Amino acid sequence: MSQSRTVNRQITLASRPVGAPTADNFRTLETPVPTPADGQLLLRNVYLSLDPYMRGRMSDAPSYTAPVGIGEVMGAGTVARVEVSRRPDFRVGDLVLAHGGWQDYALSDGSGLQRLDADMAQPSLALGVLGMPGFTAYMGLLDIGQPKAGETVVVAAASGAVGSVVGQIGKLKGCRVVGIAGGPEKCRYVVDELGFDACIDHRAPDFAQQLEAACADGIDVYYENVGGAVFDAVLPLLNAKARIPVCGLIAHYNDTRLPPGPDRLGLLTRTLLTRRIKMQGFIIFDDYGDRFGEFLTQMSDWVTQGKIKFREDIVDGLENAPQAFIGLLEGHNFGKLVVRLVPE
Amino acid sequence: MSQSRTVNRQITLASRPVGAPTADNFRTLETPVPTPADGQLLLRNVYLSLDPYMRGRMSDAPSYTAPVGIGEVMGAGTVARVEVSRRPDFRVGDLVLAHGGWQDYALSDGSGLQRLDADMAQPSLALGVLGMPGFTAYMGLLDIGQPKAGETVVVAAASGAVGSVVGQIGKLKGCRVVGIAGGPEKCRYVVDELGFDACIDHRAPDFAQQLEAACADGIDVYYENVGGAVFDAVLPLLNAKARIPVCGLIAHYNDTRLPPGPDRLGLLTRTLLTRRIKMQGFIIFDDYGDRFGEFLTQMSDWVTQGKIKFREDIVDGLENAPQAFIGLLEGHNFGKLVVRLVPE
Repeated sequence: MSQSRTVNRQITLASRPVGAPTADNFRTLETPVPTPADGQLLLRNVYLSLDPYMRGRMSDAPSYTAPVGIGEVMGAGTVARVEVSRRPDFRVGDLVLAHGGWQDYALSDGSGLQRLDADMAQPSLALGVLGMPGFTAYMGLLDIGQPKAGETVVVAAASGAVGSVVGQIGKLKGCRVVGIAGGPEKCRYVVDELGFDACIDHRAPDFAQQLEAACADGIDVYYENVGGAVFDAVLPLLNAKARIPVCGLIAHYNDTRLPPGPDRLGLLTRTLLTRRIKMQGFIIFDDYGDRFGEFLTQMSDWVTQGKIKFREDIVDGLENAPQAFIGLLEGHNFGKLVVRLVPE
Repeated sequence: MSQSRTVNRQITLASRPVGAPTADNFRTLETPVPTPADGQLLLRNVYLSLDPYMRGRMSDAPSYTAPVGIGEVMGAGTVARVEVSRRPDFRVGDLVLAHGGWQDYALSDGSGLQRLDADMAQPSLALGVLGMPGFTAYMGLLDIGQPKAGETVVVAAASGAVGSVVGQIGKLKGCRVVGIAGGPEKCRYVVDELGFDACIDHRAPDFAQQLEAACADGIDVYYENVGGAVFDAVLPLLNAKARIPVCGLIAHYNDTRLPPGPDRLGLLTRTLLTRRIKMQGFIIFDDYGDRFGEFLTQMSDWVTQGKIKFREDIVDGLENAPQAFIGLLEGHNFGKLVVRLVPE
């Protein structure tokens, strides 16, 4: 089903998941398209971004983003068109980056909107390589990771929205870059298309041995976006003075309890001490919001010049968002996952 | 027994400890005082520093310092007098900071020696507040911890060589400083003499609750030198953007295996992520050796002006070094632990 001019489909959080989310945790409502008041805009979402961090918002455990309330529309970044403007600063047809949520239409008072070129060839990139995931890759690697030429950079989810950019920037900085991805097809893409030096399939039974072999000089920067078994394999390979930017932990998002022992908390701390390692968490817009312009200029150049490649995994239809999101947490996507609400 | 002019007492590593070191892990030998060759010095150790990091050197597990070999003299920083000089750049009677080890006499080729004022009133301070422990406190807190006025700084072993300096620098920077120490006597000293805002006894059954009450605004800088139960109590109190310099983990040095589960490694990483925390290990001379001069100038001023106070726990006699060291790991010292080899 495609967008209607009168009905606003909304996907809300029906219940909080225990472990992996299921279709039952979401509910689709049909409500009238809202009417903007004076000073408001009516936005029509065109593309909807699905990102792993959204899993955290489905729970009410303390996290870096406030939880979505039960019955509330799931939040998301969107690329949207202005359908009705009751503001002097926006016109009908303007293209914007918005927090439009999992729905067809949203009202906005203009705050937090970022204007996009109305004729942008590929507006969905504002949700990927030129948006939050690209920005996350860029600042985490460059500002916290501080990669130097000749060093070894490792990143998981290497064919994904963040990992693919991390690795390509690492190559631009003269590093040896080793990716980790799920399955031979993704690994081939990461090496053949993105230019990583190697890519290890984390599903391989000898994954840890393969990673060690690919990192003969140890690991200087591990860009952490998954945690779990990947981190376990990385830990013994970290070099003195290694840096670990922590941007996500997708392997743990569905955890319902701590895993069984032994307790390795002290082991991690001891490793940080004895190898003089820096490990630092960050939340991109909270920590680096004022540097988005710098990022966008640099990344747009790199993309235009073909130095940074990207891949999108586009799913058609808002109604498919829940299943696509569930698959994202299981690694079923191949590239930046975006839902297209309006057929082209 | 005091120093002889002909016999060199040496304390060697007899066996590697399993868990806490015991007297059996050490052996005292009597060997002839060595004769320096051309280009060498004979040093007579006057003060010997005992520090927690030495426990790591007694094991052969990978660590940041190479292990002491079985049968080798235990390593240590010492304040020493030049007894015989066969070098043009040192004279008999010169006072130096050396890596003289747990023995009365040592040969040196001059490398790694640091000259001290021969008339220095309290030469043992070169092993404490004006030496490695003070330097460790200074750089870890200021360079990694980056304390800002009004923030809350927490440090354990607060009456010890490092913790006492960390807290006092924190006060000089305008922070609220909460110490942790073992027993009411040390806690009183930390608050009444050193000027911390509060000090919590980690032996108290309600230690974690007391720490929480003392850190009403959370913790912005946790200077990690112990680990274990103290870190467990600190973890839930860490604020967003907190910094954790990691200089030591005395609570774990005697561990023979990882503690039972659940495994909280992922919990720690998740906490770093969601609260955007930086945790960084460092080894003082490896990471900051070139800034020792800056430190010494500043710290000497503070000590002279009475802004930084210190306390030494001086044990007389080389033969008492093993027992003093065993006690250090159990927190029996009160202030910087130094062995005086030569009665004044």
